[in-house]
Amino acid sequence: MASHKVQLIPSKKSVEVPTGTLISEAIHQAGLELTQPCGGQGRCGRCAVIAEGEGARRRSTIRLSASDIDAGYALSCQTVIEGAITVTIPEQEKIERRLVTDKAARKIELPFAYDPLALQTVQALQIELPPPSLEDNLDDLTRLRKALESLGFTPLHVPLPVLRRLGTLLRESEWSPWVVLEVQTPPGGAARLIDVRTDPIHPFGLALDIGTTTVTVYLIDLLTGEVKNSAAEYNGQIARGEDVISRIIYASKDEGLKKLGALVRETINTLLERIRKRTGIPTEAIYKVTVAGNTTMMHLFLGLPPETIRLTPYIPAANQPSRFTAQELELSVYPLAPVDCLPGVASYVGADITAGVLASNLAEAESLTLFLDVGTNGETVLGTHEWMVTCACSAGPAFEGAGVVDGMRATTGAIEEVWVNSQTYEPTIRVIGGSKPRGICGSGLISLLAELFVTGVIDRGGQIKLDLNSKRVREGDHGAEYVVAWGDETEDGRDIALTKVDVDNLMRAKAAIYAGFSVLATSVGVDLADVQQVLVGGAFGKYINVENAIKIGLLPDLPWDRFHFLGNTAVLGSYMALLSHQARSQIRDIAEKMTYVELSADNTFYDAFTAALFLPHTEIDRFPSVAEVWEQHNRVKEK
Amino acid sequence: MASHKVQLIPSKKSVEVPTGTLISEAIHQAGLELTQPCGGQGRCGRCAVIAEGEGARRRSTIRLSASDIDAGYALSCQTVIEGAITVTIPEQEKIERRLVTDKAARKIELPFAYDPLALQTVQALQIELPPPSLEDNLDDLTRLRKALESLGFTPLHVPLPVLRRLGTLLRESEWSPWVVLEVQTPPGGAARLIDVRTDPIHPFGLALDIGTTTVTVYLIDLLTGEVKNSAAEYNGQIARGEDVISRIIYASKDEGLKKLGALVRETINTLLERIRKRTGIPTEAIYKVTVAGNTTMMHLFLGLPPETIRLTPYIPAANQPSRFTAQELELSVYPLAPVDCLPGVASYVGADITAGVLASNLAEAESLTLFLDVGTNGETVLGTHEWMVTCACSAGPAFEGAGVVDGMRATTGAIEEVWVNSQTYEPTIRVIGGSKPRGICGSGLISLLAELFVTGVIDRGGQIKLDLNSKRVREGDHGAEYVVAWGDETEDGRDIALTKVDVDNLMRAKAAIYAGFSVLATSVGVDLADVQQVLVGGAFGKYINVENAIKIGLLPDLPWDRFHFLGNTAVLGSYMALLSHQARSQIRDIAEKMTYVELSADNTFYDAFTAALFLPHTEIDRFPSVAEVWEQHNRVKEK
Repeated sequence: MASHKVQLIPSKKSVEVPTGTLISEAIHQAGLELTQPCGGQGRCGRCAVIAEGEGARRRSTIRLSASDIDAGYALSCQTVIEGAITVTIPEQEKIERRLVTDKAARKIELPFAYDPLALQTVQALQIELPPPSLEDNLDDLTRLRKALESLGFTPLHVPLPVLRRLGTLLRESEWSPWVVLEVQTPPGGAARLIDVRTDPIHPFGLALDIGTTTVTVYLIDLLTGEVKNSAAEYNGQIARGEDVISRIIYASKDEGLKKLGALVRETINTLLERIRKRTGIPTEAIYKVTVAGNTTMMHLFLGLPPETIRLTPYIPAANQPSRFTAQELELSVYPLAPVDCLPGVASYVGADITAGVLASNLAEAESLTLFLDVGTNGETVLGTHEWMVTCACSAGPAFEGAGVVDGMRATTGAIEEVWVNSQTYEPTIRVIGGSKPRGICGSGLISLLAELFVTGVIDRGGQIKLDLNSKRVREGDHGAEYVVAWGDETEDGRDIALTKVDVDNLMRAKAAIYAGFSVLATSVGVDLADVQQVLVGGAFGKYINVENAIKIGLLPDLPWDRFHFLGNTAVLGSYMALLSHQARSQIRDIAEKMTYVELSADNTFYDAFTAALFLPHTEIDRFPSVAEVWEQHNRVKEK
Repeated sequence: MASHKVQLIPSKKSVEVPTGTLISEAIHQAGLELTQPCGGQGRCGRCAVIAEGEGARRRSTIRLSASDIDAGYALSCQTVIEGAITVTIPEQEKIERRLVTDKAARKIELPFAYDPLALQTVQALQIELPPPSLEDNLDDLTRLRKALESLGFTPLHVPLPVLRRLGTLLRESEWSPWVVLEVQTPPGGAARLIDVRTDPIHPFGLALDIGTTTVTVYLIDLLTGEVKNSAAEYNGQIARGEDVISRIIYASKDEGLKKLGALVRETINTLLERIRKRTGIPTEAIYKVTVAGNTTMMHLFLGLPPETIRLTPYIPAANQPSRFTAQELELSVYPLAPVDCLPGVASYVGADITAGVLASNLAEAESLTLFLDVGTNGETVLGTHEWMVTCACSAGPAFEGAGVVDGMRATTGAIEEVWVNSQTYEPTIRVIGGSKPRGICGSGLISLLAELFVTGVIDRGGQIKLDLNSKRVREGDHGAEYVVAWGDETEDGRDIALTKVDVDNLMRAKAAIYAGFSVLATSVGVDLADVQQVLVGGAFGKYINVENAIKIGLLPDLPWDRFHFLGNTAVLGSYMALLSHQARSQIRDIAEKMTYVELSADNTFYDAFTAALFLPHTEIDRFPSVAEVWEQHNRVKEK
């Protein structure tokens, strides 16, 4: 057999290899590093190199674009050497990324130009008052009102704590106080005086999303509109139930409602303290809070009894609870800061979804669009700028890393992507932060489930095959399981595994979400294939691998470019509503426009859910791209 | 000397008396009872009898009208017998009256027809809601809003505590709850939901007047508009200062403001508890509170620092502090009850005066009218329906029984009227409740001062004459004093006396009030003699004897029929504003219409005050009727 010289750049090394050798093998032979997260299965696209010369034959170009190929890129695990070539190895990606939870928000851009005076409903400004005299002896409050009126504001009720400080502060500021106004319709108009100070004020706001599993906060600079910092944490209520139903049941017990309220407030206040430590910005400088969250979370946050949400006919106490003060809700920000709770639609389609629809721009879509919040409650909206239908299904918290033995949130130490070798069943993992793994986050679970399915470790019904002749599959404490990391590789020395119970939880979660949007499409007589855009929200939505998500049947089998992963659209919508009264009124319009489809009204949803409890679905024809991959793999194995 | 038979009716007795005998002497001779409070000086008019026959010669007919004389009435102490007569003695008045403080309010009538639905800003009603279903799955709050909208209300913000109870109460009431609404402009319009209940509600309101010396409350039935009960008590702050200036000074000390706030709340809550015990009406049924009070009292009640009120240029924190909740102000009524603080005009013309002007109807007067609040602060309003000027002078609490050694409030045991015998200087007293005396109330002090002046016990400069050859005048612990009741006649066995210091306090009080309205008249260029109505408010105003008040120079020397004593007009105005949004907006108009005259701006007031520090005034010509009486008495004595 002929041998060929492979010149390796930038190392200046070269190797001689026989015809048919993979470029990846040649690189390893030269003793050089090459990242192969998928174990050389040609699925991750991460081992791409520039192969120059006639001797490179590409067997697959998956994940490479036409322009990549034109530029000479080849997947080193899918390209065989049939002549002399020169291989340029790009600098290997450091497997490390910023913490998903706490820093990603910094990249967020507003979809509108921010003008604090024109948009912002909380404004801080310094005003000049004429000092009083015997000839001009107006009382302090009237003097202030007149000054505000001359600036175009119509001052409304002044809260008692502000009135109590007013006289002293006006004099200490030598009649040039800083005031903070809550303005109903900026730039001017009716305004509520919420603070008076002698020193300049740089006002901040807080955009909040209270998820069943995760609470996310953004600290917003109200002058620039920028996200100064963000933080996320498991909702402290998780210990009292993982999904909304168990929380509602807990709330109906003695003191249960109070305890759950205290727990979520504790979580929020912990996040506030974390942000304060990081930024040095005092929480008393937070003058406005906007809250998104599903209907149950909003009830528990406000202390509204949620029982009627879970009992037919599923009635919330309030879909539009409106505005309270931080003081009333015991949030550790400026006590008189308005807390604006965004409007929801129904018991299971809350303010997280209306905020998400705002952030995703669905309400202005020209073509048929599907909006999914891949969270615990699996809310879905289908529609265009003209109409919207919505529903929700209880997916459970599996995709947020809860309800899975080794599940965890997407933070340092979480396995976020897995590739399984189809021959050896050995995994390659990517860990957030590049450290030793501690558990598996949502995107890692989807990735792992898809890999195990495609490589035949689990069958279409979700059973783990124990007869594979691999130490990775075994009978564990929780039944059959697949070990994704051995104890000697992990941070705490324990094996990290995916159990049969975990698989069942993930299957139910994905089946519920799929059933939700398919029932919605049926209800309005459209075909899922006609969906032109799939907008995926949810805390971890941004990190879903669309290929994997389609493989397990979580997302519909549509061309990948129709999918847009938007991350936590609830907190983004909350951020927009915090900053702009126009965005705020759009959310109200969205809430009023949506038609809610009650899935429990008949058996349609249950039937669709049962049908979806397969990988990818009992009707594999709905997933032609998955059927092809799966059949290839299994045809290979059967040979 | 001839003797004449006097036939006495209805006793059937008769006596023979010589020519020149007084009828009163004849009655005593027959052993019959005759009330002579003034000691037979012909000043009180209380010993009138019907004298038939030619033998009665009237020497004086003071306090008798022409028709009285036509009917045969004669003063028995001023009518000598010169022939046979028949004397009919009317049934003698029992010297007893209802407690001034707590029951007088029952007689109060509203000056408008009361229609609770048309006028009342707090309304209780039962409403019917369609129960929810899968087809009609509106949230509870929206369902309620729609029902209220169909009744013509525009529901505004719902407070959090109500929202928290809403779902449970709607279901417990089987969708027919009772609601309590705070309505902005009845009968319909914008409304705030302040309570939801399963059981019928009979709503009550509280009209409050916080005086420097006395706090008065009326419990109002909001369905009928009637005063159900009332109570009054010394303001608990008195222990920390008797007038507004000393309170302000106290408030500026450490915790002083908090302590004063706590003290007045304690007084109000004590009165509420007293009313609750009397009526059995729970204080939680009180759904609205309207507050009148002078500017300092309002500041202390609300916890606003009052320091700037006493320092030039005399600026209050707020003249129109507006509306808070009972909860914020720690009043023990329904926690979300609105507490409406009525508007004031300036640091020393507060909501007690605007409420008083409303209640007195001055704002609709066609002719020149003087409104006086004879309280601690001596506020005065002069004007017509077209214009009003106002001022205030610190009269001190002497007329409310405070700042006087044996002063007390007008309650059981208070000496409320005194007559002094001009020969013996022995007093005759009338005591509230007819019991043994405990002290002297405001009207008693005015009466006593006038008597002592007219009988020459004190001179025009207010000096007590110690050389009168009467045990009643003596050198006491506080200097010269006049003993009005010996220890063996009093409840506690101690002498009750008026001291030189008390006289000085009373002189300063009356001088300040007189100076106030005389400066006001000068400021607008009118003559006090042109005043067509003098409307006297103030807690004890109702019981002032106009003759005595003119004698000491407290009131201007005008025909008596121009004086109208209205009692506590502040609480009456508060009562009107509580019941009617129209009355409430009239008060706002009144506050805006009044021009405040700052007495401290120059020496005009001080000069007028100094001139008034005489009895009745340095310029006795201003008091022609007094001059005549005084000269008569003193001419007699000099003879």
